[in-house]
Amino acid sequence: MYSQTVNKLINEFEKLPGIGHKSAVRLAFYVLESPLDVAQNMASTIIDAKNKVKFCSVCYNITENDPCDICSNKKRDDSVICVVENVKDVVAMEKTHEYKGLYHVLHGSISPMNNITAGDIKIKELLERLKDDKIKEVILATNPTIEGEATAMYISRLIKPLGITVTRIAHGIPVGGDLEYTDEITLIKALEGRREM
Amino acid sequence: MYSQTVNKLINEFEKLPGIGHKSAVRLAFYVLESPLDVAQNMASTIIDAKNKVKFCSVCYNITENDPCDICSNKKRDDSVICVVENVKDVVAMEKTHEYKGLYHVLHGSISPMNNITAGDIKIKELLERLKDDKIKEVILATNPTIEGEATAMYISRLIKPLGITVTRIAHGIPVGGDLEYTDEITLIKALEGRREM
Repeated sequence: MYSQTVNKLINEFEKLPGIGHKSAVRLAFYVLESPLDVAQNMASTIIDAKNKVKFCSVCYNITENDPCDICSNKKRDDSVICVVENVKDVVAMEKTHEYKGLYHVLHGSISPMNNITAGDIKIKELLERLKDDKIKEVILATNPTIEGEATAMYISRLIKPLGITVTRIAHGIPVGGDLEYTDEITLIKALEGRREM
Repeated sequence: MYSQTVNKLINEFEKLPGIGHKSAVRLAFYVLESPLDVAQNMASTIIDAKNKVKFCSVCYNITENDPCDICSNKKRDDSVICVVENVKDVVAMEKTHEYKGLYHVLHGSISPMNNITAGDIKIKELLERLKDDKIKEVILATNPTIEGEATAMYISRLIKPLGITVTRIAHGIPVGGDLEYTDEITLIKALEGRREM
């Protein structure tokens, strides 16, 4: 129905996560119907961001400077590393303004179903960082999914022999949540993780 | 929370229709985390499409050739023009494989609320085409919204004095629809448009 060039543009938008065919058509027409400089701006911003933004060679968070602002911040507690699955998790943690330690971004989780093994994510790089005697605690903040749990389990077994404290973030009923609508696994986790008041 | 370059990329995606802040963040991270050639492909496809795809100088549909394939197709009935609000409406009409006439894309509808007047859409260009004696009928297929109705009304008043038949597509209960859940205005339109069986 559309010409080859238009179809190519639609296909390009369809590759984006969460964008189906109808949304891709809408985005393509937005680009086609808007002035030339809108499209040029979009294209150059993509290339510019891609060129400027790198991964920190220490924690693998995205950054424009290497090492990143968090790794090179002298005020942060360099005895704690919080291990997360991806960059957005760092942002989520930073928004709390509570955590003052460092991070380590794995860029994924171990998932045999998707052919992602321990070697495909930044576990080796984490172990390399732990050779530094400064580090006293590793907080495993991978997601409470099968993959996230397996990854946490795998890493904890590697780190424990090194004499470093390994902790896992708490799972339970979210604040504002409702017992009635909480799934069984979360309830079990909430019970297991109960603390004396 | 993000660096300036990342924020710029997020803002760029947020400009797209139907993309909110969270989706824009997801798209930006998709670009940042994917290999360089994915981003380069996307940027070049946008620019390429923008450069190749023009508006037909006759009907204002998008096209890579001018006049477009529909306008230059000798098999089509050049005595009928179907007036639609935008390019996607042409595609919707073409999908029926029923309509064999020409089109005219207005690129919008008269909307005083949004400061869009008759001069901002391709009405002048439509009247110019009607100077050709071949045209016997103009089908107004603008949307059944307040703006679409107003635009249809406005155009019909301009065209009727020229002795050209002006018709409006039928509004009523969509096929597969349910009387019970049909809104009053549509029901009124369906009643008004009733035909002898």
